Amino acid sequence: MNLQDMKELLEKVKNGDIEIEDALERLKDLPYKDLVFAKIDNHREIRVGYPEVIYCEGKTVEQVKSIVEFMLTKNKNIIATRASEEMYKAVKEICEDANYNKLGRIITIRRTEEKYTDSYIAIVAAGTSDLPVVEEAAETAKILGNRVEKVIDVGVAGIHRLLANLDIIRGAKVIIVVAGMEGALASVVGGLVDKPIIAVPTSVGYGANFGGLSSLLSMLNSCASGVSVVNIDNGFGAAYIASMINKI
Amino acid sequence: MNLQDMKELLEKVKNGDIEIEDALERLKDLPYKDLVFAKIDNHREIRVGYPEVIYCEGKTVEQVKSIVEFMLTKNKNIIATRASEEMYKAVKEICEDANYNKLGRIITIRRTEEKYTDSYIAIVAAGTSDLPVVEEAAETAKILGNRVEKVIDVGVAGIHRLLANLDIIRGAKVIIVVAGMEGALASVVGGLVDKPIIAVPTSVGYGANFGGLSSLLSMLNSCASGVSVVNIDNGFGAAYIASMINKI
Amino acid sequence: MNLQDMKELLEKVKNGDIEIEDALERLKDLPYKDLVFAKIDNHREIRVGYPEVIYCEGKTVEQVKSIVEFMLTKNKNIIATRASEEMYKAVKEICEDANYNKLGRIITIRRTEEKYTDSYIAIVAAGTSDLPVVEEAAETAKILGNRVEKVIDVGVAGIHRLLANLDIIRGAKVIIVVAGMEGALASVVGGLVDKPIIAVPTSVGYGANFGGLSSLLSMLNSCASGVSVVNIDNGFGAAYIASMINKI
Amino acid sequence: MNLQDMKELLEKVKNGDIEIEDALERLKDLPYKDLVFAKIDNHREIRVGYPEVIYCEGKTVEQVKSIVEFMLTKNKNIIATRASEEMYKAVKEICEDANYNKLGRIITIRRTEEKYTDSYIAIVAAGTSDLPVVEEAAETAKILGNRVEKVIDVGVAGIHRLLANLDIIRGAKVIIVVAGMEGALASVVGGLVDKPIIAVPTSVGYGANFGGLSSLLSMLNSCASGVSVVNIDNGFGAAYIASMINKI
Amino acid sequence: MNLQDMKELLEKVKNGDIEIEDALERLKDLPYKDLVFAKIDNHREIRVGYPEVIYCEGKTVEQVKSIVEFMLTKNKNIIATRASEEMYKAVKEICEDANYNKLGRIITIRRTEEKYTDSYIAIVAAGTSDLPVVEEAAETAKILGNRVEKVIDVGVAGIHRLLANLDIIRGAKVIIVVAGMEGALASVVGGLVDKPIIAVPTSVGYGANFGGLSSLLSMLNSCASGVSVVNIDNGFGAAYIASMINKI
Amino acid sequence: MNLQDMKELLEKVKNGDIEIEDALERLKDLPYKDLVFAKIDNHREIRVGYPEVIYCEGKTVEQVKSIVEFMLTKNKNIIATRASEEMYKAVKEICEDANYNKLGRIITIRRTEEKYTDSYIAIVAAGTSDLPVVEEAAETAKILGNRVEKVIDVGVAGIHRLLANLDIIRGAKVIIVVAGMEGALASVVGGLVDKPIIAVPTSVGYGANFGGLSSLLSMLNSCASGVSVVNIDNGFGAAYIASMINKI
Amino acid sequence: MNLQDMKELLEKVKNGDIEIEDALERLKDLPYKDLVFAKIDNHREIRVGYPEVIYCEGKTVEQVKSIVEFMLTKNKNIIATRASEEMYKAVKEICEDANYNKLGRIITIRRTEEKYTDSYIAIVAAGTSDLPVVEEAAETAKILGNRVEKVIDVGVAGIHRLLANLDIIRGAKVIIVVAGMEGALASVVGGLVDKPIIAVPTSVGYGANFGGLSSLLSMLNSCASGVSVVNIDNGFGAAYIASMINKI
Amino acid sequence: MNLQDMKELLEKVKNGDIEIEDALERLKDLPYKDLVFAKIDNHREIRVGYPEVIYCEGKTVEQVKSIVEFMLTKNKNIIATRASEEMYKAVKEICEDANYNKLGRIITIRRTEEKYTDSYIAIVAAGTSDLPVVEEAAETAKILGNRVEKVIDVGVAGIHRLLANLDIIRGAKVIIVVAGMEGALASVVGGLVDKPIIAVPTSVGYGANFGGLSSLLSMLNSCASGVSVVNIDNGFGAAYIASMINKI
Repeated sequence: MNLQDMKELLEKVKNGDIEIEDALERLKDLPYKDLVFAKIDNHREIRVGYPEVIYCEGKTVEQVKSIVEFMLTKNKNIIATRASEEMYKAVKEICEDANYNKLGRIITIRRTEEKYTDSYIAIVAAGTSDLPVVEEAAETAKILGNRVEKVIDVGVAGIHRLLANLDIIRGAKVIIVVAGMEGALASVVGGLVDKPIIAVPTSVGYGANFGGLSSLLSMLNSCASGVSVVNIDNGFGAAYIASMINKI
Repeated sequence: MNLQDMKELLEKVKNGDIEIEDALERLKDLPYKDLVFAKIDNHREIRVGYPEVIYCEGKTVEQVKSIVEFMLTKNKNIIATRASEEMYKAVKEICEDANYNKLGRIITIRRTEEKYTDSYIAIVAAGTSDLPVVEEAAETAKILGNRVEKVIDVGVAGIHRLLANLDIIRGAKVIIVVAGMEGALASVVGGLVDKPIIAVPTSVGYGANFGGLSSLLSMLNSCASGVSVVNIDNGFGAAYIASMINKI
Repeated sequence: MNLQDMKELLEKVKNGDIEIEDALERLKDLPYKDLVFAKIDNHREIRVGYPEVIYCEGKTVEQVKSIVEFMLTKNKNIIATRASEEMYKAVKEICEDANYNKLGRIITIRRTEEKYTDSYIAIVAAGTSDLPVVEEAAETAKILGNRVEKVIDVGVAGIHRLLANLDIIRGAKVIIVVAGMEGALASVVGGLVDKPIIAVPTSVGYGANFGGLSSLLSMLNSCASGVSVVNIDNGFGAAYIASMINKI
Repeated sequence: MNLQDMKELLEKVKNGDIEIEDALERLKDLPYKDLVFAKIDNHREIRVGYPEVIYCEGKTVEQVKSIVEFMLTKNKNIIATRASEEMYKAVKEICEDANYNKLGRIITIRRTEEKYTDSYIAIVAAGTSDLPVVEEAAETAKILGNRVEKVIDVGVAGIHRLLANLDIIRGAKVIIVVAGMEGALASVVGGLVDKPIIAVPTSVGYGANFGGLSSLLSMLNSCASGVSVVNIDNGFGAAYIASMINKI
Repeated sequence: MNLQDMKELLEKVKNGDIEIEDALERLKDLPYKDLVFAKIDNHREIRVGYPEVIYCEGKTVEQVKSIVEFMLTKNKNIIATRASEEMYKAVKEICEDANYNKLGRIITIRRTEEKYTDSYIAIVAAGTSDLPVVEEAAETAKILGNRVEKVIDVGVAGIHRLLANLDIIRGAKVIIVVAGMEGALASVVGGLVDKPIIAVPTSVGYGANFGGLSSLLSMLNSCASGVSVVNIDNGFGAAYIASMINKI
Repeated sequence: MNLQDMKELLEKVKNGDIEIEDALERLKDLPYKDLVFAKIDNHREIRVGYPEVIYCEGKTVEQVKSIVEFMLTKNKNIIATRASEEMYKAVKEICEDANYNKLGRIITIRRTEEKYTDSYIAIVAAGTSDLPVVEEAAETAKILGNRVEKVIDVGVAGIHRLLANLDIIRGAKVIIVVAGMEGALASVVGGLVDKPIIAVPTSVGYGANFGGLSSLLSMLNSCASGVSVVNIDNGFGAAYIASMINKI
Repeated sequence: MNLQDMKELLEKVKNGDIEIEDALERLKDLPYKDLVFAKIDNHREIRVGYPEVIYCEGKTVEQVKSIVEFMLTKNKNIIATRASEEMYKAVKEICEDANYNKLGRIITIRRTEEKYTDSYIAIVAAGTSDLPVVEEAAETAKILGNRVEKVIDVGVAGIHRLLANLDIIRGAKVIIVVAGMEGALASVVGGLVDKPIIAVPTSVGYGANFGGLSSLLSMLNSCASGVSVVNIDNGFGAAYIASMINKI
Repeated sequence: MNLQDMKELLEKVKNGDIEIEDALERLKDLPYKDLVFAKIDNHREIRVGYPEVIYCEGKTVEQVKSIVEFMLTKNKNIIATRASEEMYKAVKEICEDANYNKLGRIITIRRTEEKYTDSYIAIVAAGTSDLPVVEEAAETAKILGNRVEKVIDVGVAGIHRLLANLDIIRGAKVIIVVAGMEGALASVVGGLVDKPIIAVPTSVGYGANFGGLSSLLSMLNSCASGVSVVNIDNGFGAAYIASMINKI
């Protein structure tokens, strides 16, 4: 219900076309039930190809399958993150063209054709062990309609590998930096380019890495400006906000 | 040294205007000393009004004063964050028009006229106790040339205060959310708007807040997409990346 | 031994119906053995349907089975929490009508008919991944004799879903809020209703969630008044205290 | 604006006593500004003596003073927690009858006469070092209109002191347990009484107490049922939810 | 009330020297008020010189003074730990012969003559910075009636210093080991002697010492058998249990 | 080499029965190789029945088996803690009379007859889930020659169960308290008895228990005097030091 | 490209043997692509036998195999750390002479003959459970061309075992100390010898060991000078820096 | 007592110049009292200029002064770290030529002339706020007789500053890297040079830096080989081990 609807309602009241009690009924729940809800839905629906997202961790195979089943009726793109291979097989049964990125543990189903952006998101990763997070981020960014360029295995232990790829990194509109261990890559990239950086700490490493804590703290304390951070291993979240920025 | 300089050097070599040994001397340190440095400087200098930044914590009053003194010779805008009032007074002695935001503990010196962006950054804060961080962010964003709109004291304990200000928040190009305690504001805003959010956890709170840890973890674990996080109380860092995004 | 018993004992002493030594014997251990024990038992027994509770984690299947076997002789309701399916099968062998809530990992055996309260406990959960905790809480609340209303998947990332269900939440006498990740739901509900809230952080999430730590800290630091917290994933504990409050 | 107000507005519209544009103006911001707010206000206002609360930590003396000044115009009870003596003096200047509980660091201003409940809240504390938290809780509970009984210095190191006071504890409708160090008091009380317990860990202790962490974890892991927990040293929060329960 | 008292009471009942109602009155609160209390008191009182203990941290000077004042009426030894110099002065006003160990921050008042044990407690400390804890332990041990031998500054960085003092350490009945930093001394002593060791981690150190955490964890993980641990800096606690063992 | 050996050597030197160079050879490495070793061995050997201890965690089945094989040649008692069933089977092959306590995961081999102490160690445990630690402690204490009394399932949630068993606890010379969750049992027992207490936190519990951290911190912060603590789940270590105390 | 190459290029320019544009092309990417890379490569290549290192954790068997395949074409020594037996089998298929240290989980392939150093690295370990880390360190040190001496099972619980091996430890040029539990060995060795010590905390232990945290903190807080620390269980890293020092 | 002394003693025994009992007396305590002590002293004394070290934190001004007073009698170099200005003044009273590095908080007293090494230690620091640690390290290294080169303010946010100083860093025999915040500098330097690196995390930073924890974890998890770590802010410790390496 928008202002126009409300005005018409008041006019009906004035003209006696509607009973006061009925008008009251329509108005009283309005703040919660209609307005807010509609507003949100609207600005989500206007963007073609926006996918529905399912976070599969902690859900059963059955649950994932039936959520997908319901979503397929809406005919939109679908992402299911942290999906096991078993989940993929279950989804495949009800949706022939579902895709599965095994490394990134992500199921994607396309129903609207993506119009890729001209500008691109650079995904820069320290090591090959960070690939699962890179893949989750890349798949997400792509189905959200972004062009993606990956620069892998450019950890700071061999700074020349990073320097050799600066052009492709600097050409991006927004950069996702993925790194485990000490997560220094985010600071170093942040010092070399003048683009917003979304840093993803990964749980790659051992011992005093404490499941990604070392790279998380490292990235939060980055001495370089222009770096913000998402949760450990959260490739999806990084791609989501990077997509928002890339599409500005 | 840019490509043009390099070309001229080679021409001098060809023409015998310079000895090979001398040319060699100029070239051999080039990767470290000149090129990289220049490249960075270049893309920083092309943006009018970009300020030099001094992080004052852990520095003596003397150190801050002499760093400012040196920077004044470059005739650029200057920001000094985490500056004590004593530092401000010392700076004031050598720079009449230095400004001090006491709450935000930030000194600003303007030398170039800012051209404010049309789009704006919204700074949304949970409580009045978060104001120091808000002020640090706002001052930084403004001297970087951004229009800023503040929405203060809209913590989730009274969600209606937030809902009542949705229009101004939704109108922004990028949003900074500042919150201490449980930091829930980031998630709630993230669920209501479709803009990139830079979340700043603050150390406001006590007990199990552990100096901002609770809001930091809360924001990193946000169930809403589109949220990334900077260090606890890091208003400057949030404004810096928000400015990058706002100027795209 | 209650006051009446004690009086009778003294009368026997007076009348010489009992030797002083024997009376002494009965009295000397009374503070520990009888009185306290009885007092506790009494105020527990007067409430019909109060169940015996077994915490199965760390117990063997054999241990659980024989504890149940012993309890069955008392002919009261029984709850066994954190019970594996294997444990349920073992219990089933000795008790035909044992029920198992697989998601909630809880076995219930009914021996007294519950008289449900008129007032109800609302269980509000952020996501479907929180369902195991919801089920543990719901089963517990019900066998304790409470009417329960569940409101699931109303996490703060889509605040409208929560607002749309406010009536049912506000209608409760006490509210259990179940949420993982950043646990913001507790604060938001706390700001919208004026009923006591028992918040249950869940271990749902990953990375900097640190096994539920982020939601735990979040809930403890809630900026909304009226929120208290139980242990991570402790659906049983939340239901127990909520039942106490609901039955006032 | 409540339903009655809304109905009258519609009647004025019908009768032509108000222009549609004017009615629209009053209605359009209603979902956020009025209705939600009103709804909350309403169920808050119906309880006489409900105080406004100011959390003073992190605020300046000036800020606290002017917030109180504004609140005084509403003629309601006021609580200001974590208030320094300096803040109290500033408030005193504008409000003759402001009271200050120095130990509890809490300012109270009474404008409505409290109608005390018949039932009472028992506040049970382990040691005299926990008194500041006890006082914050007691003052809060009282201005919210609750009868309060305090049982102090009954820590578990001398269990007989606790047992000797069981009657007064068992007579309460809801119990606040305040304890630092190992926080065992909550579990012991929880095992002895059948009333809801709100446990407040305090930062009393040293070394491996880690600012209240040991008692916090202890209380969250209580083996006794019926215990829920608020933030470290949060006497106010405990009293607030206890008051909700006591008034059921 | 002890068994003898109880017997006499029963005899009076039998002889009609007391009314049953009066006897009942005396007996009914007995489990909590008298017996338990008495039992504890009894086994405490039988040991001459057992002091009353006041933990001063978090108490005001006034509180400490009046607690001491009350205790003086009992004419027993008194210990006040973590006492400031100001507290000592206040106590001195009401008790001429109060002693103050400044380094150990402990006030002692003697009212019964100690009978020192033949066996002794060895207090072994790593460095001179650990002296405050050593002094707290030594004063406590002595007023509890133990002979004490101190071996200071024998940290493991110079193992020969420790080895040179082995005889005195091995001659003790129980050993208190005090160490900060990495706390290795407990393990080394544990490997060299066959006596029970009470280890006290101290907060001496910096950085990754985290306020004594490193030495605490170190001592808990001691590879040597026969080591148990008390709280960080808890010299009093170590001396208390060591005294119990020494007096067996 | 003991003093007697040394004396004989010197006499041989005096009598010319041995060359100085040869005597020198035997003496020069003596401080490290022989004397120290001997000294330790000596004071260990004088106590009949002292067992050799193998900590099996992190060792392979083969390693455990061959260590036992070697030890069997010394004809002494043997303890192997944290031993898997597979390890037990391997040991059984080479030692017919090896015993295995499955719950306590401990292998014992007896070669000397224990002379049990008159005094006993009481092992007091909060719940049945703590039994593995209880068993490890009990087996250890027994093979070290101590009489043991167990009091199980007396957690503080039902304080009467503990009070009912006070006599047996108070009769011990030293007490081991085993508890998980909030570990309050140590403080409560500490307040009721006047014997040294060795507290063992267990990893029983979930969520904010953090693998035993909550009970560990709880016990370290015990408000009762006379409590010292060993590592989480370290039943062996508790029994070892308790045995030292019991045998004084 | 080295200085000589650059000089020749300039001479060609001078002589007109190459067009300026072509020379420019070769020079412009030089800082990143060539020079830096070369520089690093150069000072790495000059040391015979320097191996390529693969960190296998988080990589698939396929990935490890193909990385090795590629490396074999360079004909250099290869180390693959944290390699599973399955990975070894896969590598064995393409490289007959690959070796596998099962305990140390490390694959080594030799292509250049090592010239062992005269000086040696001593690897000193507290217990047999630390052997996997010792083996990783030893294999690494050896393939890097160092002579290695191992001193195992000399934990501080039996200091004489350590003292008996001092000569071999003192004879080393650099010492690696490997210890879990409380990690005291590093401090003790540090106090006895005057050589640089690289300490490796291991995750051996349980409970409050927290996965190696206790030994890590212990070693970082060593009261002995001359100790520095690498990551938990990082035998490879310790050997690498020890090799650097040993070869000085 | 050395071998020669022992030989002479045996000869006296042989010749009857000493009683066996007396010889025995001298020999029996030898392992602990003499030999070990001497051995250590010897290898310390042979190096000219080795200073005595006093760690002042936690010591009183009086204690520091009298320790220095005693040391002065030995006529050796003295270092006092973490010394306050007040301590310096007290030392100055008894030692005219004491020097104080205010930033590094370190007192040095020279009694032997240092012979500086030809090779040097490079101290590389990320920011000017790290200077106190740099100064502590530099003063320590110098009085230990090392040549030192400092490279300050080369944090990774501006990698070109680091690259521009590579020559001086690569020329060192061993490198100390000092950095706070995210501590990435250690990894980056580690990737660029082939020398042993001693990394010192500093407590510079705020929020999620947690007193140096972020840089500590970062350095421990360095992806570059050849990096080992000392305690947070431990400039002295880094210089000590670096000196050991530099003097090889």
